[in-house]
Amino acid sequence: MKEIVVQKFGGTSVANLERISKIGSIIAAAKNCGLFPVVVVSAMHGTTNDLLKLAQDAGCGAYCAEALQEHDAILASGEQVCAGLVALKLQSLGLRARSYLSWQLPIKTDATYGDAKIISVAQDAIYEAVSQNEIPIIAGFQGIDNASRITTLGRGGSDTTAAAIAAAVGATRCDIYTDVEGVFTADPRIVTKAKILDRISYPEMLELASLGAKVLHPRSVEIAMKYNVPLRVLSSFTDTEGTMLITENTPIEGRVVTAITHSAECVRISILGIPLTTGSAMMFNLFAEHGIDVEMFSQNISKNQDCLDVAMVLKKQIAQKVHALLEGYKELIGYSHIGMRDDLVIISVVGIGVKSHSNVTKDVLNTLSNKGIRVDMLSMSEIKISAAINAEYAELAMRALHSSFGLDKE
Amino acid sequence: MKEIVVQKFGGTSVANLERISKIGSIIAAAKNCGLFPVVVVSAMHGTTNDLLKLAQDAGCGAYCAEALQEHDAILASGEQVCAGLVALKLQSLGLRARSYLSWQLPIKTDATYGDAKIISVAQDAIYEAVSQNEIPIIAGFQGIDNASRITTLGRGGSDTTAAAIAAAVGATRCDIYTDVEGVFTADPRIVTKAKILDRISYPEMLELASLGAKVLHPRSVEIAMKYNVPLRVLSSFTDTEGTMLITENTPIEGRVVTAITHSAECVRISILGIPLTTGSAMMFNLFAEHGIDVEMFSQNISKNQDCLDVAMVLKKQIAQKVHALLEGYKELIGYSHIGMRDDLVIISVVGIGVKSHSNVTKDVLNTLSNKGIRVDMLSMSEIKISAAINAEYAELAMRALHSSFGLDKE
Repeated sequence: MKEIVVQKFGGTSVANLERISKIGSIIAAAKNCGLFPVVVVSAMHGTTNDLLKLAQDAGCGAYCAEALQEHDAILASGEQVCAGLVALKLQSLGLRARSYLSWQLPIKTDATYGDAKIISVAQDAIYEAVSQNEIPIIAGFQGIDNASRITTLGRGGSDTTAAAIAAAVGATRCDIYTDVEGVFTADPRIVTKAKILDRISYPEMLELASLGAKVLHPRSVEIAMKYNVPLRVLSSFTDTEGTMLITENTPIEGRVVTAITHSAECVRISILGIPLTTGSAMMFNLFAEHGIDVEMFSQNISKNQDCLDVAMVLKKQIAQKVHALLEGYKELIGYSHIGMRDDLVIISVVGIGVKSHSNVTKDVLNTLSNKGIRVDMLSMSEIKISAAINAEYAELAMRALHSSFGLDKE
Repeated sequence: MKEIVVQKFGGTSVANLERISKIGSIIAAAKNCGLFPVVVVSAMHGTTNDLLKLAQDAGCGAYCAEALQEHDAILASGEQVCAGLVALKLQSLGLRARSYLSWQLPIKTDATYGDAKIISVAQDAIYEAVSQNEIPIIAGFQGIDNASRITTLGRGGSDTTAAAIAAAVGATRCDIYTDVEGVFTADPRIVTKAKILDRISYPEMLELASLGAKVLHPRSVEIAMKYNVPLRVLSSFTDTEGTMLITENTPIEGRVVTAITHSAECVRISILGIPLTTGSAMMFNLFAEHGIDVEMFSQNISKNQDCLDVAMVLKKQIAQKVHALLEGYKELIGYSHIGMRDDLVIISVVGIGVKSHSNVTKDVLNTLSNKGIRVDMLSMSEIKISAAINAEYAELAMRALHSSFGLDKE
């Protein structure tokens, strides 16, 4: 069996023909090493936004199923063009290469237009290409549904395409080329001492991705984790090694906390006096029905022991909608008071280590308290400790935690 | 059976969202008249050229089969985007509409990438859409070959798509919307008295199209003629009736000459002293092999009765290539002399009438002679009389012929 490496190039890596030349040499180099590259490309940087703008302006603004289908057919053209251009570039370097669109493989998805999930990737055409010494350049971000209509996978979907293809063909590695050099211990624009991790576990990466570290699409990490695809994040602009995603079972000597991350622009909604008989189930039914994601949640029995008090932190952009929704269902939920607090940020300490080190929580709270930062809400999961704090203190908190957990660059 | 009208919109008719709105109302109007529109669209004006430029710059400049396949996959995205936008626009007008790509119907072609011929159009999906009261918006200019790769039909190919679909579904009419108001009796930029023809026969239109009147792609006229599809050329910018293509059997009362047209930038190549035993067959074999089109051709026995003299008129852009080719085969063809004359133009008088009116040739020659214009070469076909003349006299000749055959506007 030939050693396949899936190479995925994001929008900035194919932004223009000069960049496409550069990735041409990256692909050629892998080929020259005896690996068999299978390439996945995004649209050229900016293209998808331009197409989306066109589509929005052409339509009536309402997002019925029919309109979403057209949006997807329009958006998918961006990767189609880019795949062709990369194939041409490789041909001009004397390599055999051809583009594949999702219907030509096919890559099957469900019918959730604009945010489809991959159901299957047919490997035959890819194996055939590789056996013919031909480099397949696959248009990312898209698939077809059962009705043979084009679907798209949502923003960052090309990462997902790459991971799914790597899983389907049993690739040795899946390299995600981007415009950052790898996964940082914190946002380097905020924490100047942040450094690049050479390794990170899948679950940690998943937490980082969900928390807004926009390096990898969460779904691509889920797929890589599920099918045990060795995934690497690296830059197409520099020659550095990037960050390798590894299984949780490989312990990283002496490391408790891997990274500090934050989720900006959050809002807390408090709902007081919910009857114990109703509980919070009603609320979560509502949230599920309306596709509302809650970042943090806590509930307590009230002082008088006769009702529940609930608090949740969620993204600012959906806060008004959720507030209105809860007000609309006031009688049904039966609460007595609703309140909202703006200008919060969630700071999270992520690491496989935190679950078995109860000291970490103590250290987080002490570090913040030493800087005079009040923790509005606290939550702990297996690999993450999150604190909602006043947004004004976000940078200070991140830098303090980054230092106190020993992540600063030497 | 429902009355289907195929409506094809060219690049300038879908140049921007404002224009797409306009054609949205044209389609809606047809629907409101009780017709069932089946729409074919080109890419937005300029898109195909931009994509072609990108593809050319990405490749090595050599046009191997693999590169042409990628060119086609890249170019086809232009119509894909446009079909989606038109569908969205119709949806926003409250109509049911969806885009179709050639692989979704499918439209099958041969594998001549960049210049493919349509082999078949599957009607099922179109009939199904119409029966569901849904307007199909079909991406023109493209198809798929047996290997399921995207092909394109060459410039003007969307006209061909429209005619082929009209033939396949038995459309009542095929309306080709463009940026001109119809077919003129001559190029109105040259002959200011030129007027729009309300009717023209297929064969006449075919001659005009081949002779560079860029209103309709010749292949679309051939298909319309072959399958007897009533084709209409009209403007999406004005509310005029346009020009209807009719069968040759419908005589147009009293009209002998329908239009005057010209083919600019031509060159004459003379080859003298070809042995009678070889003849011109060898030359035409060469031309066929190299895909060379000759506009006009004549041969005569030479003065000494021992060899052939040949003269041909062809497009300037291929003249050097043909000249070099003929020089390379000088010994094989066995001619004694080759000469080239630049700066010619072919003026043609087109009309179903000319074949049965020998007076027309006389009138052409007299009209030109009265203006002191020398005819370098003359050829006659069933519906066309062509004269190669010095390019300096082109406009004068056209205006004189337009007047003398009674085509001037009142």
